[in-house]
Formats: sequence, structure tokens, C-alpha cells
Amino acid sequence: MSAEKRPQAIELSHHLSDLAKARQVSPLKGLQKFMLNKDTIVLAGGLPHPDYFPFADVSANVLVHDAYSLEPSEERSSSLSWVWKLFGAGSSKEKTTGITIPKYVSDANKEVNLATALQYGTAQGIVPLQKFIKEFSAKVYQPAYENWTILLHGGNTDAWTRAILTLCNSGDYFIVEEWTYPSALASAAPYNIRPIPVAMDSEGLRPDHLRKTLAEWDQEARGARRPHVIYTVPVGQNPSGATMGAERKKAIYDICVEFDVIIVEDDPYYFLQQGVYRPKSERSVNTLKHETDKFVSSLAPSYLKFDYQGRVIRLDTFSKASMINLQSYIAPGSRLGWFTCAPLLAERLERQGETTTQAPCGFGQSLISQLFKTWQYDGYVRWLHGLATEYRSRRDYLIDTLNEEFQVSRTVGTKGVWEGSDIFEFSFKATEMSEKLRQRKLFSLVPPTSGMFLWFALHFENVPGFRQGDEETLEEKLWETLAKKGLLVAPGWFFASTDDVADAGEGHFRISFSNAEYSDMKKAIGIFAAVLREFFKEH
Amino acid sequence: MSAEKRPQAIELSHHLSDLAKARQVSPLKGLQKFMLNKDTIVLAGGLPHPDYFPFADVSANVLVHDAYSLEPSEERSSSLSWVWKLFGAGSSKEKTTGITIPKYVSDANKEVNLATALQYGTAQGIVPLQKFIKEFSAKVYQPAYENWTILLHGGNTDAWTRAILTLCNSGDYFIVEEWTYPSALASAAPYNIRPIPVAMDSEGLRPDHLRKTLAEWDQEARGARRPHVIYTVPVGQNPSGATMGAERKKAIYDICVEFDVIIVEDDPYYFLQQGVYRPKSERSVNTLKHETDKFVSSLAPSYLKFDYQGRVIRLDTFSKASMINLQSYIAPGSRLGWFTCAPLLAERLERQGETTTQAPCGFGQSLISQLFKTWQYDGYVRWLHGLATEYRSRRDYLIDTLNEEFQVSRTVGTKGVWEGSDIFEFSFKATEMSEKLRQRKLFSLVPPTSGMFLWFALHFENVPGFRQGDEETLEEKLWETLAKKGLLVAPGWFFASTDDVADAGEGHFRISFSNAEYSDMKKAIGIFAAVLREFFKEH
Repeated sequence: MSAEKRPQAIELSHHLSDLAKARQVSPLKGLQKFMLNKDTIVLAGGLPHPDYFPFADVSANVLVHDAYSLEPSEERSSSLSWVWKLFGAGSSKEKTTGITIPKYVSDANKEVNLATALQYGTAQGIVPLQKFIKEFSAKVYQPAYENWTILLHGGNTDAWTRAILTLCNSGDYFIVEEWTYPSALASAAPYNIRPIPVAMDSEGLRPDHLRKTLAEWDQEARGARRPHVIYTVPVGQNPSGATMGAERKKAIYDICVEFDVIIVEDDPYYFLQQGVYRPKSERSVNTLKHETDKFVSSLAPSYLKFDYQGRVIRLDTFSKASMINLQSYIAPGSRLGWFTCAPLLAERLERQGETTTQAPCGFGQSLISQLFKTWQYDGYVRWLHGLATEYRSRRDYLIDTLNEEFQVSRTVGTKGVWEGSDIFEFSFKATEMSEKLRQRKLFSLVPPTSGMFLWFALHFENVPGFRQGDEETLEEKLWETLAKKGLLVAPGWFFASTDDVADAGEGHFRISFSNAEYSDMKKAIGIFAAVLREFFKEH
Repeated sequence: MSAEKRPQAIELSHHLSDLAKARQVSPLKGLQKFMLNKDTIVLAGGLPHPDYFPFADVSANVLVHDAYSLEPSEERSSSLSWVWKLFGAGSSKEKTTGITIPKYVSDANKEVNLATALQYGTAQGIVPLQKFIKEFSAKVYQPAYENWTILLHGGNTDAWTRAILTLCNSGDYFIVEEWTYPSALASAAPYNIRPIPVAMDSEGLRPDHLRKTLAEWDQEARGARRPHVIYTVPVGQNPSGATMGAERKKAIYDICVEFDVIIVEDDPYYFLQQGVYRPKSERSVNTLKHETDKFVSSLAPSYLKFDYQGRVIRLDTFSKASMINLQSYIAPGSRLGWFTCAPLLAERLERQGETTTQAPCGFGQSLISQLFKTWQYDGYVRWLHGLATEYRSRRDYLIDTLNEEFQVSRTVGTKGVWEGSDIFEFSFKATEMSEKLRQRKLFSLVPPTSGMFLWFALHFENVPGFRQGDEETLEEKLWETLAKKGLLVAPGWFFASTDDVADAGEGHFRISFSNAEYSDMKKAIGIFAAVLREFFKEH
């Protein structure tokens, strides 16, 4: 740990939206000094006595921090296999430990308790949770400035909506990756806050195109000021799966300093970093020993590490996913996460939260807090390492299965999003098709290095009868055919930041490996292959 | 139950704000039909497998539904006395029963389970909870139209903010009670949506003044269209404590039909209805037998009961209080409640929620859901009856203590908010003061019939050296003196809907009886009396 003094965040108030500036601090807050006297009798609020909370205590059985093995395993043919490995075949009991949250405790600030968690609801959350998050963020993200702070939010969708409304006025634009998370656009759209796409490559956002976009911004022609906000998902980029490393982040950060841009770093997949995919034959059997600091420094760093000016707003979540998908699934219901940012921005974000859900659910806060008390920092990092291993196994299994189902050839990309990437191109296996069909490229992908998604490009130009401009209808048609045959994937157009991006791109699918049973993933590839066989034959 | 067919909600889309109209339904929702096939493999989303949720199960010990006695008791000198009554002196064990939420169950839609609650997060909430809420609302509120629906929200502050943004554009006005809940104004203010106060009396909002305000609205002079939204807290009106009965609600509803106004009924104290306060000597000792239907029909009905057009948006909460007070206490951390309203409005409110916290916390939903499964409808109503009894005892205790500490005389109000009310006027006891001081009215109150607050009017005109216009500074000064002496109350100005209302009113305090120990309430009155003695003497 450096003894060097880090700078303070720069002046950022000019970045605030009119709405953010209009939010008042409750005049009573200034009188809070009277609350510090523990003998003060408070008859000022509208809180029920904790005796009236029907919950006397809440408990949980939680998995131990090292529940997930660090050994990539070929035996992961079933999601329960790791259980059998730990406990022997036939055992279905997960290895757990108990946690309890009583209603009353002796030191209500130090120990998690329901009287506090179900009552107190400052946007900063209960004290034990705040402490854990602060310590965790300091150790893992190592912000480059001194006076950074954290603030709880209700999940990254809530966080981003709060951020964009705090920073942008109606009519403003904000920078996004050309392919991005649609919900982020949906948050901004009703307020007439619109996206400006910037090109991507194998590491994500391209600095050259970012600089060009900002430098050449014509305020008059656009009828709006130059964008001063970037929305980015730099690790496990949604949907491309790219991971942005340190050098690229520094380069982009420097451009943001030059053009005075705020970076909103939406990072739900930060801990699902998996390294480069190697086909089975190339894979080494590496038994990983876990060491907390070693694991943490193996991760591509956050933008915070380079943020000497305090212009990054980082969004962390305990949810691991925040997308509305076809079933209107919404992020795992802990609905809990936190901002890491400069105090001025945190204060305005807190004001924004006060008229909505204010503090995240007390039940969630106290359960997660008590879980961390049990696991501690080291245990939580070990847990995350186990989780990353799980996701790597899932990614590897899915791509392995594709490799087995299809013929694969590899090439290096020369243009667009995949410029410089190691591309896997898939065609029908030699044995099953006519010579003519065999050589047709069906789809390509660049294996993701983080996250939970495969991003497929479909080679519709090889569909018989194809005409330029057919990509859109064919993408839709293939999507629907797959759906009818029992496989739901996410169609590419859903992730295009603008219509232009959608039109320019060939057909895409985004396929998730986070949730399905391994047997279902195998089945899914079978369905996919069967549908492709028909699709590339008949049309 | 009437066999009469109830009407459908009327056409309400003209009430939607521009923002509400701009919100898009995700285009993928139309393709949800494919999800109905249980064999469909879904690789479209970004959800983690429930195996990765570290919570194997969550349990709680909850109070039994009849934990609170229905006997108003003079022995409630300590908040634990009821416990002793139930279990004998020396016993501190609450009477509880256990509930458990496992991660996996056989029927994930019927039984509460973590894999669903921590995953699924539609704004409509988990199915068991929806069902309970729908049944409860039907039985208790009996909406007068056919196609009403419910939608979860994250507490009444979130609910009101969503409602006002769904209904009003920047520049619009909305009707409020002249004294009201400040947080409601704070939600609207940054969007330049401003309150129009309407006069109140002993039952709350006055129909004659409401009609006058709407009929005489001068669009040109105001630069805004006539208000089409009322924000009202009709039961346990905050801060006056009034309870609005059926006849008054009907009269106001009729005016809203005539002028096409939406009623937002914020009703967090609905179940804290206590009846008229009677001094100890006048109190009858009534042992209440509990019967579910009898208790429910004893309550002043909701506006929903008269809402044949579907123009009421009702806000219910499990939180029992949603106010930011001096300590930034925020409503009990269940952060859970629901709207009851017409489908068109619910759909737009749901869209609004999708870019913020979407679904309330899965932990909270599943714990509350399982609690209701244990208590059932009848048990929950019995619980509410017990709670109302508790609040009545607290109210009675606080006013009894004032009656003992001061000299009381009673009179009927002739003007303003207390016109027609039974007013209690307090002065110094005969024995302790000079003749001159003894006759000075110090403060007055009208005992609340619901809720958790006493609303005091201070008679600053009797402070020696008083001059017209001093009320504001004296209110502040008295407030601060009390705070320094260890008693925090809420100052009246905080509840004035506009500056004009604040200026016109004499000094007020709002004092809560929801939270303090009985011994602290007694101590508080002692502090209050001591401070008043000095205040009305020296100045």
C-alpha cells in the first residue's frame, strides 16, 4: 500500500442536471445535531416501535465460502456434480452454515439486528454493511483519489437511472458502446436523453473513435451540447463479452479528462473474469491455489484504479445480472448494490433516491450483511473465485459442445467489432452435408473472456436466395423458428444502441450460459444445429 | 357480497403525463408466448443459476397473529407489559411461530421459495404474495368497479413519486390538504410540480373549498391547466390526525367525478383507527371480542368503496410509516407495498418502475408472503386489530398524561381546521402558578381518531411581549429549547403545504406516540411542561 497521498476529487458540480440541482436537502437535516444525544426522547417521527415488527428473528443457512471448487472439471455435466464431488454421490445436502439476525442486540450499530435493519433506512444502509462495502471497495478497486465514498442503491438498473437523471437534462446525449445493454437506453429514452454509439473492438470501446466523436461534436448541428457522460460495461461487455484491460482503460480515461466526461462504469460481471477460452485439446489442467490478493490482482482493474480526478461513477451489484429478459425476469431479488464515486455526486444521488425507494430492503441488507460477517473479506473473495470458475466451466462447456456439433475453423478478425480477435467460424460437419453446404460459414463467435454471454454473428449471406438487406428479417425469422422449436435466445437487434447500428450489423444472437442446466445447454445446441440445417438449406 | 355487476374503469389515458406516455413496453414482451411452454430452453437472459445463490434457506420466528391483546389496559406503563400479561411476569419470550423459505420446492408458483423470490422479480411480485394482496384488498376495500388491479411498489414514498410522475407534467399543480406530509411535496418539487392547498376541518379535506378551488381555477392567470390530481391522507391525516368518514369521501368523490380529478389515496394509517378519545373518567371498560368481518366493517371505508369510475389510486404499505424524520429514519425496511388502481394506470406505473428498482426485494417478499401463509387473512386482520389497540392505548396514555400534567378545559371549535371539533385546551395547573399565568391557554389539541400523531396548536399570543407575526420565530425558538432539553418534536412549519399556509397558522408541533417507551412519553411531557413554564413566563 502506497504511502503517497492521493488527490481529492475535482470540482464536478457543472456535471449536474437541472433536476439534480433542484433537489433540496430536508431543512431538518441541519438540526440533526440534537440526535447525537442518546438521552434525547424523539417524538418527531412516524416510526412504529420495533415491538410491532412481527419478525422476532430471521435466520438463514448459507453456503460456505469455498462451496465452489477451483478445479475446472470435465465432469460438470450436471449442475449438481460439484455437490457430489464434495459430499459423495447420493448426497444432496449442500455444505452450509447458519446465520441469525435477532431483533434486539446490545450494540445496535455494531451487530446486525432487525430493530435497526427493519427500521433505519438511510440511503447509506446499515452500518455493518457500509463498513464491509467500504473495505471491500478499497481493497479490490483501489480508487486513485482520496475522498471517494459509497452509497447503496437498489440494483444496477436503479443505479443507472439515478445516475443519468443526476447528470443529464432532457435533450442531452450520452456515449455508449455501439452494442449495449438495452435497459440502459430504456431508462434514458422517456426523458429524451439519447445514446451516441462509439465503435468497439476486441477490448471494447475504441479510444480513437471516442476521441473522434467528442472532438468533432458539432453543437449547432446537433442542437445539443457535447456529451459529458459515457455509459460502459467494460468487463463481460454486454453483449460482446469483451474484457477491457488496464492500458485501454487508461487511454479512455485520458480522453475523458481531456473532454471532461463522466464515466459511468456498470460492472455486474466484474468477478466473472474467465481468461481466454482454449479448446479442450489446448487446455492445460491447472489446479489453482487460491490466495486472496493473488486472485484480486489477477483481475482486469476497474476504471477507479486510474481515476485520479474522481470522475468515475462505478455501479456494483450483488445481483450478478440486471436484465429484463423475455420472461420479465428481473435481477435476483436482493435488489442491492452500491455506487462508488465522488462525494458531491454521491450526495446528489442520495437526494435522488430519497423520493423513491430510499434505502434498499432491510431484510436483504441484514441477511447479506450477516453473510459477510460469516465469510469475511477473504471468504467473499474465495466465493467469487469459485463462482468465476463455475462460469468458466459453463462457457467452456457450451463452446466445446459447439465445437463437437459443428466444424470449426479459426481466423483473426480484420474489421469491425472483431478486429484483431481470435474468431471461431462454424460450418456443417464434413460427414453430414453435401460438399457445397459443408463449406458454408453458418455463424461465428469470439469467445468471451468474462461474463455470461456468447455473441454469435450469423452468416446470412450464405443462406440460399439471400439478398443484401435481408439480415434483419432473417434474424427475426431464425429467432422465431428456434423459439418454436424450444430454444429461446436473445436476438441481436435488441442490443443495437441505435437503428443505424442495427441496420449495419449482420444478424446476431446473444446466448447466455449462466442459468441453464448443462444437459439443457447440450440439448439447446442440438436444437440449434437442427434448425440451422433446415434454415441454410431451404432458403 | 352483491351479485350486481360492477362497472369497468372509465377511460383515463388523458390523465397520463408526457413521461408516462413516452415509456415503451419492451418489444420482447410480445414474444413472451413462447415462454408458456415449459420445455423451452431459455438462453436469452442474464440470470444466474439458483445454485449460485448463497442462501440455502431463510427462516424466521414471527409473532403469532393474536400477540397483541384487544383489551385497552391501564397497565401499559411499559411496552413489555403486554408480554408479562400474556406469559407471566419474568417471561420475556415473545409468543412466536417459525416460518421457513427453502430454496427449492416442488411447485415453484404455489409455494414460496428462494429460487423464485430471489430470481423472479416482476413488478407484480411473487405469485403467493400477489394472491394474498388481491384477496385482502377485495375483502377490506371492496372497490366499486370491476377490473381493478394491484401492483407492488417499494413503499409509499416510491409509490407517490411514481404516481405523480405518471400523472403530471412539469408546470402542473396538484391538490393537497393545507397541512400535509412534506415528503410528498419533496417528490414533486424538483420536477416543478407544485401543490395547491385546500382547507381542512375535523374530518379532513373540505368539499366546499375543494369545489371552489377547482371551479374558480383561472388557467390563464395561473399559466397551468386545472389540477387533475389530489394527494390525500384521509385516515390519521398527517399531521392533524383526522379520520375521513364515508359521507365526506362520497362528497369529495362526486366533486372529483365532476371535475375529472384522480384521487391518490395515501393510506399508511388505515388500520390504526382508534375511535374518539375519551378521558379516563369517561372511558368505558369494553372487552372487545374480535370478529374478522365485524372489525373490517367498523373501519371508515377507503375511497375505493365509492370508486365506480376507477379514478382512485390507492397506496398501501406494509411499512406503517414512510417519513424521513430528523434522524433520516426511513420507513421500516420491508420496503414493500402495493397500488390498487385501474389497469391502464397500473400498466403505466409498472413501466415507470421497470427502470428503477423494478420489483421489491425478494427477501422481503418471501418473508412477508410466508408470514401471511401462516397467519392467513383472518390472522392478519386479528393482528391489525391488536395493533390498532396498541396505538389507541398509546394515544390515550399520552393525552391522559397531558391531562394530569396540565389544567384542561374543553370547547368546540368555531373556525379553521378545528371547526366543529372537540378541542382540549391546556393551561397551567391551579396550584402551581400565579392567578394571572394560570388562566393563560398554553396549547390546544384535538385528539386524533387514527394514526400516530398529536397535532398541537401553541397559544403564542399568550406569551408575554408577544407581537403579531412572532408565531414563526417563537415556534422555532420553543422547538429548539425543547430539543436542547432532550425532547425532539416535529415543528409545525414542516407540514405547511405552502409558505402562505405556514404564515397564516399559529405555531404548531406534531408529536408522535408510535415509537417511544411509555416511560419516555411520561418523561417527555415532564420536559414539555418544564420548558413551557419558562417559556410562557419569561418572554
